[in-house]
Amino acid sequence: MPGPGSPVELRELPLPELEENAALLRVTCSEVCGTDVYLREGRLAGVPYPIIPGHVSTGVLESIRGTITDIYGRPFHEGDRVTFLDVHKTCHQCWFCLVAKASTRCPHRKVYGITYGVGDGLCGGWSQYVYIKPGVRCIRLDGVSDELYMAGGCSLPTALHAVERADVRFGDTVLVLGAGPVGLSTIAFSSLRGAAKVLCIGAPRIRLDIAEKMGGTVLDFTRHSIAERTDWVLTQTHGRGADVTIECTGVPEAVTQAMRFTRDAGAVVVVGQYTDHGETTLNPHLDLNKKHLEVRGCWGSDYSHFHRAVDMLQSPNAALKWSSVPLRAVELSQVNQAVDLVASGAVVKALVRPNA
Amino acid sequence: MPGPGSPVELRELPLPELEENAALLRVTCSEVCGTDVYLREGRLAGVPYPIIPGHVSTGVLESIRGTITDIYGRPFHEGDRVTFLDVHKTCHQCWFCLVAKASTRCPHRKVYGITYGVGDGLCGGWSQYVYIKPGVRCIRLDGVSDELYMAGGCSLPTALHAVERADVRFGDTVLVLGAGPVGLSTIAFSSLRGAAKVLCIGAPRIRLDIAEKMGGTVLDFTRHSIAERTDWVLTQTHGRGADVTIECTGVPEAVTQAMRFTRDAGAVVVVGQYTDHGETTLNPHLDLNKKHLEVRGCWGSDYSHFHRAVDMLQSPNAALKWSSVPLRAVELSQVNQAVDLVASGAVVKALVRPNA
Amino acid sequence: MPGPGSPVELRELPLPELEENAALLRVTCSEVCGTDVYLREGRLAGVPYPIIPGHVSTGVLESIRGTITDIYGRPFHEGDRVTFLDVHKTCHQCWFCLVAKASTRCPHRKVYGITYGVGDGLCGGWSQYVYIKPGVRCIRLDGVSDELYMAGGCSLPTALHAVERADVRFGDTVLVLGAGPVGLSTIAFSSLRGAAKVLCIGAPRIRLDIAEKMGGTVLDFTRHSIAERTDWVLTQTHGRGADVTIECTGVPEAVTQAMRFTRDAGAVVVVGQYTDHGETTLNPHLDLNKKHLEVRGCWGSDYSHFHRAVDMLQSPNAALKWSSVPLRAVELSQVNQAVDLVASGAVVKALVRPNA
Amino acid sequence: MPGPGSPVELRELPLPELEENAALLRVTCSEVCGTDVYLREGRLAGVPYPIIPGHVSTGVLESIRGTITDIYGRPFHEGDRVTFLDVHKTCHQCWFCLVAKASTRCPHRKVYGITYGVGDGLCGGWSQYVYIKPGVRCIRLDGVSDELYMAGGCSLPTALHAVERADVRFGDTVLVLGAGPVGLSTIAFSSLRGAAKVLCIGAPRIRLDIAEKMGGTVLDFTRHSIAERTDWVLTQTHGRGADVTIECTGVPEAVTQAMRFTRDAGAVVVVGQYTDHGETTLNPHLDLNKKHLEVRGCWGSDYSHFHRAVDMLQSPNAALKWSSVPLRAVELSQVNQAVDLVASGAVVKALVRPNA
Repeated sequence: MPGPGSPVELRELPLPELEENAALLRVTCSEVCGTDVYLREGRLAGVPYPIIPGHVSTGVLESIRGTITDIYGRPFHEGDRVTFLDVHKTCHQCWFCLVAKASTRCPHRKVYGITYGVGDGLCGGWSQYVYIKPGVRCIRLDGVSDELYMAGGCSLPTALHAVERADVRFGDTVLVLGAGPVGLSTIAFSSLRGAAKVLCIGAPRIRLDIAEKMGGTVLDFTRHSIAERTDWVLTQTHGRGADVTIECTGVPEAVTQAMRFTRDAGAVVVVGQYTDHGETTLNPHLDLNKKHLEVRGCWGSDYSHFHRAVDMLQSPNAALKWSSVPLRAVELSQVNQAVDLVASGAVVKALVRPNA
Repeated sequence: MPGPGSPVELRELPLPELEENAALLRVTCSEVCGTDVYLREGRLAGVPYPIIPGHVSTGVLESIRGTITDIYGRPFHEGDRVTFLDVHKTCHQCWFCLVAKASTRCPHRKVYGITYGVGDGLCGGWSQYVYIKPGVRCIRLDGVSDELYMAGGCSLPTALHAVERADVRFGDTVLVLGAGPVGLSTIAFSSLRGAAKVLCIGAPRIRLDIAEKMGGTVLDFTRHSIAERTDWVLTQTHGRGADVTIECTGVPEAVTQAMRFTRDAGAVVVVGQYTDHGETTLNPHLDLNKKHLEVRGCWGSDYSHFHRAVDMLQSPNAALKWSSVPLRAVELSQVNQAVDLVASGAVVKALVRPNA
Repeated sequence: MPGPGSPVELRELPLPELEENAALLRVTCSEVCGTDVYLREGRLAGVPYPIIPGHVSTGVLESIRGTITDIYGRPFHEGDRVTFLDVHKTCHQCWFCLVAKASTRCPHRKVYGITYGVGDGLCGGWSQYVYIKPGVRCIRLDGVSDELYMAGGCSLPTALHAVERADVRFGDTVLVLGAGPVGLSTIAFSSLRGAAKVLCIGAPRIRLDIAEKMGGTVLDFTRHSIAERTDWVLTQTHGRGADVTIECTGVPEAVTQAMRFTRDAGAVVVVGQYTDHGETTLNPHLDLNKKHLEVRGCWGSDYSHFHRAVDMLQSPNAALKWSSVPLRAVELSQVNQAVDLVASGAVVKALVRPNA
Repeated sequence: MPGPGSPVELRELPLPELEENAALLRVTCSEVCGTDVYLREGRLAGVPYPIIPGHVSTGVLESIRGTITDIYGRPFHEGDRVTFLDVHKTCHQCWFCLVAKASTRCPHRKVYGITYGVGDGLCGGWSQYVYIKPGVRCIRLDGVSDELYMAGGCSLPTALHAVERADVRFGDTVLVLGAGPVGLSTIAFSSLRGAAKVLCIGAPRIRLDIAEKMGGTVLDFTRHSIAERTDWVLTQTHGRGADVTIECTGVPEAVTQAMRFTRDAGAVVVVGQYTDHGETTLNPHLDLNKKHLEVRGCWGSDYSHFHRAVDMLQSPNAALKWSSVPLRAVELSQVNQAVDLVASGAVVKALVRPNA
């Protein structure tokens, strides 16, 4: 990806010489997601173009120099099928890491496929090989196929984090705004968390069909006014609004709507505002104070979310949910079309197979 | 208070006949607070004018019919010096009380001095007597003078609730926006909660002087631009913003400012938006999502906040803080002037002595 | 049940005259559970024998005097199929209710079928009719059959409370000790809460088979030594022990074992010690302090647990779990045999149909 | 300290050559605490004798090679007056660090003065110099004298952690068992946290006098039977027991007593069982389950506790509390006597000044 606004180009790059305790991953699948759309459009700040996109990938460890281990201290071996956490270099030395314990706000983080440039090495998955730098955290995909993992992909830790931050209680009605990959994984995790009912307001129909398979009761927002959507939520909730609403849309106004769809003393999680789409307006008396409402922004994810998301996929119940997500796989040469399909919402989940 | 926009008038009303398990309180002090200003202006919805204002009062139990007890089951006696929780009739039978356990959003609550009309009896403290209906919860003022209690008054449970909801940690820097009675009590409780530093942006100078006595480091917002205020907060916090900001102003824009004064992964409590003063604008990406911020509306208080606030006043450390609040006491005939003084900010805390 | 150690006798009692806002329930099913075994053995303190046992029951409202409503304020009608919360008279006026907000420790609680005697009226479900006193909280069984509800019965709110108190996280391994009704419901709720794996150590085989259907991986403790059980838990958990252990056995030593089966910085919930079976021994350095372990006693349940448990049964996923519990129904005349079967563990769940 | 059971000997060791990003600290004060008594007695497992004791020390950075920074990224300079976190090498790579986020149970931790042997270098404070290895976290003592810091010393992060884990609420009565350094700091932090009352059962009188200055109401356990102590606690708490009890004694039976001194639905924190003193006996029905009690072991501390403890000392309120602790300072040659004094309880806090 040469720069903002330009299509992705294929380039030949040399294979890196491995540092001590580094590895080379032969990529099986790499995700094409909404972030990649934003990256091509140039909507993210601080991206060191040109970059190799592809922040979430699976593959096989082709060569290892020195030792890399999992978090149980077990060494990885060449030939192991793994994925890795795209977020790298969380420092564990700064005030955010050590005192606030808010490592997703550590200023030293780097992200494969997003904040590493081509000059930093093979740090993106839309490539035949990814360079696993020393300290990058890999995880074995035991009992989880590449395709199942990719059905969730980057939305897995994001949605797990959001649902955890939502403090869902047994018997809650959770409302998910948006039916993109994060919305769908949020529906699945809400359902797995003990919500008695999961509602989803989203579009298009193709995604809502999957939302239903993942446990959601759905409403197509393109066919219903705000007033109708509100009525629908109230009807589903004994007239009081959702216990928890999780915003996964990216549209600023959806944050205010989320507050209004939620019952008094409920909670809203804002996880869809990944990039700057502008402002929204709200009434602090009616929307926050008198409602005794909590609104929780939710940024990124850490190793804990990633690890536990993979653990969850090993349970049959969870696997069933994500296996209903259709995948559109393309070769490396067709990646721009894949980005187009994601941008238009025509596919739910696209991926590249660089070695296919 | 005959109706919105009209001054308070003195009226003679008959003493009530006591129901079983009710009492008559001879009022010593009753508060004149910002809510009373709003009541006179007609800014609160659903007020059954004409009303007897005065929601927080102290007095002596003049007569009791049947038995009224404290929460330890001990009966009250005639002659006991008490205060009582103005919030009444929380039902403990509805979904909000029993399932959400959010009793401050119980739709059956009634509030002395605000949502009871003259037709409901002597249900306000700007009166020589208050009728303590069956079920109203009184508390003895053991070791706490009427004046000390009134120095906090209705702001005590409100501020205790807000600081509790703020989840202050040891070592935090808490920023309080506003130096009215709620702001001042919030400074005191934040300081008593283990904050290493409590900042306050407010005005006028007379209130900021008290804010300092209660444990605050202060800035007069009338003399500093938003940019200067931001710089001041950053300078006080190693450049990262307050760990927790508690909004006690009533100005909608202050909610957005609170979010911007707060560090990433911090928290904002909104407790000042007691009435509808309109909208504010914010950027959900920058102000919520990327910041990983929590914003918590905080409505009203319940018996627990009230009870523990009175318990706190019994500790010398806490008593010292509130004893620095100057009180302006007036006779019943001068209550309109007291409301004027509160409205103008010329006094910090005014009260009526109806039997003086 | 005439007294401790005596078998249950059939007696004819007059139908009560209804007070205002009371009702008469024609009983369809009433549970025979471990508590009833203890009641017949006289192991519970403070039981006002003779009593009518049967604390959890379903039925049809035969007659209503005045108005009784659900927590949404909707009136019940004669002919409605309902169940009701056996715990009654939680006072909402004492320190435990109002300040600690620990209503299960309210000293004023009375429990149908346990702490009401025959002299208090028809306050137990092993009877053709139950007198629904004013203030007893009923709930409609919409979409939930009597049999499905009874498959969980009194273990539903108990287990929901225990699992909630366990703070299960996504991806956790939960270990349940015991495979009686509370153990089984705890397995089901743990699985519905997002545990990646639920282990159960229990017996006999008939119950372990159901434990597996409810989501558990099981070990028969009668065939394995403590050392073998420990090895099994460690093998299932990467060598570190369960993240959360929930004790549902009633055996004092199981509490110490639970602590030793749990990983460092994990949690143990103690919910099985419903009656006094004596003491256990532990090493506070090794079992608590160095482990950084939390041990949480869990007593009773409140309306919130009851209400949400019924809500959960309306979700197909949950219904599937409890529908795997076999029920043994008897007539009123055979209730002593049903107690025997429960005492011996020969049946998982027994119930009486007093009007069959 | 050559080995278990032997007195400390003075030895001459060479000054180390500094690695990159390491430093040499000229020690001003180093603590002599209960851990050192245990170390000399050989009661701690896994200590690599011979060791240089002294895990908490203050001093001046004499020389720095490369760069060492504080958590704000600011470099330290030679001549800076600092202290450092004795816990070192928390790995931030294992399951406990990354998934459980329970870094005090990270198996890779090393502790200056305890788990480093003489062969590891100058890793204890009873020495003229301490070698600050790469990665050791120092903190400037701005506004905090060496003596004030040492008045708390290693008890500061321990007690802050324990009080934080106790979840003290405004208005609580906290009971502290034990009046050693951890007990005293626990009293101070409980008082700073918003407890309305802090009780302490301990001995000897010299320590109880300080406990009173730090905010405690005290009882000498050597003069009162268990029954009298229980009565005293009940009298102080409206007959219900302490809201929170924090065990700081090291005596196993104190853990069971703590449970019995605590009210239903309250909490016990166990922080005093630092070494293995054997077992205790409890009744899980009466002491845990029916009480709905939480018992929380509390192990060690992390950088967050250490950092915020130092921040707290900068507030005048906190400084006042710890300045009431008398210090007994000795030269290096008298350190065995200092250990004797600590062991006998004859002094509250002893320290070594190796360069005096």
